[in-house]
Amino acid sequence: MNIMDKLAKRISELKNPTVAGLDTRIEYLPEKFVQAILPEGIRSFEDAAEAVYQYNVRLVDALCDIVPAVKVQVAYYEMYGAAGMVAFEKTMAYARSKGMIVMADVKRNDIGATAACYANAYVGKTPMPYGEEKAFSADIATINPYLGVDGIKPFTEACAANGTGVFALVKTSNPSSGQLQDLKYEDGRTLYEAVADLVEEWGEGTRGETGYSVIGAVVGATYPQQGTALRARMPHTFFLVPGYGAQGATGKDIAGCFDANGNGAIVNASRSILCAWKKREGVPFDVAARDEALRMREDLCSSLKEMGKEIQ
Amino acid sequence: MNIMDKLAKRISELKNPTVAGLDTRIEYLPEKFVQAILPEGIRSFEDAAEAVYQYNVRLVDALCDIVPAVKVQVAYYEMYGAAGMVAFEKTMAYARSKGMIVMADVKRNDIGATAACYANAYVGKTPMPYGEEKAFSADIATINPYLGVDGIKPFTEACAANGTGVFALVKTSNPSSGQLQDLKYEDGRTLYEAVADLVEEWGEGTRGETGYSVIGAVVGATYPQQGTALRARMPHTFFLVPGYGAQGATGKDIAGCFDANGNGAIVNASRSILCAWKKREGVPFDVAARDEALRMREDLCSSLKEMGKEIQ
Repeated sequence: MNIMDKLAKRISELKNPTVAGLDTRIEYLPEKFVQAILPEGIRSFEDAAEAVYQYNVRLVDALCDIVPAVKVQVAYYEMYGAAGMVAFEKTMAYARSKGMIVMADVKRNDIGATAACYANAYVGKTPMPYGEEKAFSADIATINPYLGVDGIKPFTEACAANGTGVFALVKTSNPSSGQLQDLKYEDGRTLYEAVADLVEEWGEGTRGETGYSVIGAVVGATYPQQGTALRARMPHTFFLVPGYGAQGATGKDIAGCFDANGNGAIVNASRSILCAWKKREGVPFDVAARDEALRMREDLCSSLKEMGKEIQ
Repeated sequence: MNIMDKLAKRISELKNPTVAGLDTRIEYLPEKFVQAILPEGIRSFEDAAEAVYQYNVRLVDALCDIVPAVKVQVAYYEMYGAAGMVAFEKTMAYARSKGMIVMADVKRNDIGATAACYANAYVGKTPMPYGEEKAFSADIATINPYLGVDGIKPFTEACAANGTGVFALVKTSNPSSGQLQDLKYEDGRTLYEAVADLVEEWGEGTRGETGYSVIGAVVGATYPQQGTALRARMPHTFFLVPGYGAQGATGKDIAGCFDANGNGAIVNASRSILCAWKKREGVPFDVAARDEALRMREDLCSSLKEMGKEIQ
C-alpha cells in the first residue's frame, strides 16, 4: 500500500476528496481569538507563529473527522522566519496525530545533491551522526519539475525508503500559468503535456494497489478541459487540484480530474475554509470552517455523482 | 543604484566575480573543529545548526575581503528543521555585517498571493501589526519561473520597494537540465530561450546604472555555448553562474557569460571552497578555503583577460 493508496482509502472512508489548505496568516484570524491567547497582541514573529499554530489546532480539531488531509503552504510560515517554521512543523505533527494525511506545499526544486537535502527534509530523514532524524512531518510534498529528472530522483528515492510521496507541478491554477506551460513544442505537445508524460514515466515502478504511483501531479482546477484531458493522459498519476473556492472553480469544473471510480484526485481549498467565518457573523471560526468543508464535500460528491463517478 | 549595480561595484573593487556558496552540512566539517565547539559531538539538529553556523562564520571571516558575495543554499539548512533555519538567518546576517552581498538560494515559486509571502520573507518585509519586519536578511533570492509572470511580479514589487533583487532559473547546470529546458517550441526557441526572453522583459523598468535589471538569471556554466548565446540574448540581465569547480566547469567555460566590460556575471563555487581543506592535509579549513577562492579569482580573471573582458 503506497501513500496514494492510503490517501484514497481515507478519502473513501470519509467520502470526501478534499484537502484543507492551512495557508494561515495573522490577517485571517478573528481579533477576539488573538486577544484570548495573546492579551497584549502580536508583538513578534514568535507571537504570530503561536497564534497561527493555535488557529490551526482548532481547525484540525474541527475538520479531522470529515476531511482526510491538510496541505500546509510553507510560504505563510517562512514569512515569520524560523519561528514560523516551528509553527509549520507543529501544525503538521498535530494534523498527523489526529489521523490526517499531511502535505507540505513547498514546491522545492534543485539539482541532485541539493534536491536530496530537500527530499530528506520533507519526505525522508536527515542523516545525523546518531542515526536518521525527521526534520518535518509531511507524508507528501509538492515539487517543481523545471530541472528535469535528476532534480526528481532524490525525491522518489526518499519516497520509496519512507513510504511517502510527492506532487509535481504540471498545470498550475494561476492566470499566467499558460505563459510557459501552454507553449507548444515542435512535436505538438505543450510544456505541461511534456511534463505530464515525464511525471507518468517517473512514477513507473512505484504504483500501488489502486494503480497510482507515488509521484502525483498538481493540476489546476481553473482549467477544466485540461484537467479532463490530463486525467486520460496520466492514468497512474494522482492529482492534487488547487483552485477551488476562492480561486473560482466549482465541483463541476473539477469532476473531470477524477477517474471512473471517483478516485485519483484530491481538491484543495484554503481561504474558503480558513476564512469562512468572515461570511458568518457570530459563528465561531472552526464551526464556519467545518460547515464550509461539509458544503464543499456535498458539492464535490454531487458533481461526481452526476458524472457517474461516485466515490467507492 | 540598484542591487546589481552594488554587486558589480563590489566585484569591481575586489576584482573578483565569485560568490561563495555556503551549502554547509555537518559531513563537510573537520572532526577537530566539531570537537572544539561541541565536545560531546553533534547530538541534535540544534547542535548541527550551531556547528554549521560557526563554520560559516570562520569562512566569512576568511573570505569577506576577497570575495564579494555569499550564496546560502537553504536546502542544507531546512534539512536540520527550524534550528537549521536559525543558522540560515544567522549566517546571512553575519555575512551582511561583514560587507558581503547575500544571496538566498531558495528557488521559490508559487501563485500570486503565496509568491508574495515568499517575496516578503526573502527580499522584502513581512507585514505585522506593529509595522514591517524582515524575516531573512537576503539581498537577492533565486526563484523558479515555471508559473509565469504572476508568480514573478510579487518578487519584482518587493525588490522595487526594498532595493533587492532576484535570479530566475533559466538554464540550470545539472545533467538533466535539458530534459525540459532544451525542448524546442514551434517558433524555434527552446524553453530556456523562451524563459530568457521573459526574464529580460520582466526586468524592464528596473535597470540600474550599469544597465542590468533587478531580475537576473541563473545560467549554468556546464553549458558554455548556451552561456555565450544567452549573454547576447539578455543584454540587461545579470547572470548567476553555477557549475564551477566540483560540477566541472572552468574559467574558460564561463567567460562567455560576461559582457565586454567583464561585468554581468558572478560565478558560484560551493563544495570546492567549503571542502578545500580535504585536499590540503594539515591546513586549517578557512585558510584552504581562502587559498581556493584566490586560485579561483586568478582562474576567472585570467580567462576574462584572455577574452579581452578584463573587469573594469
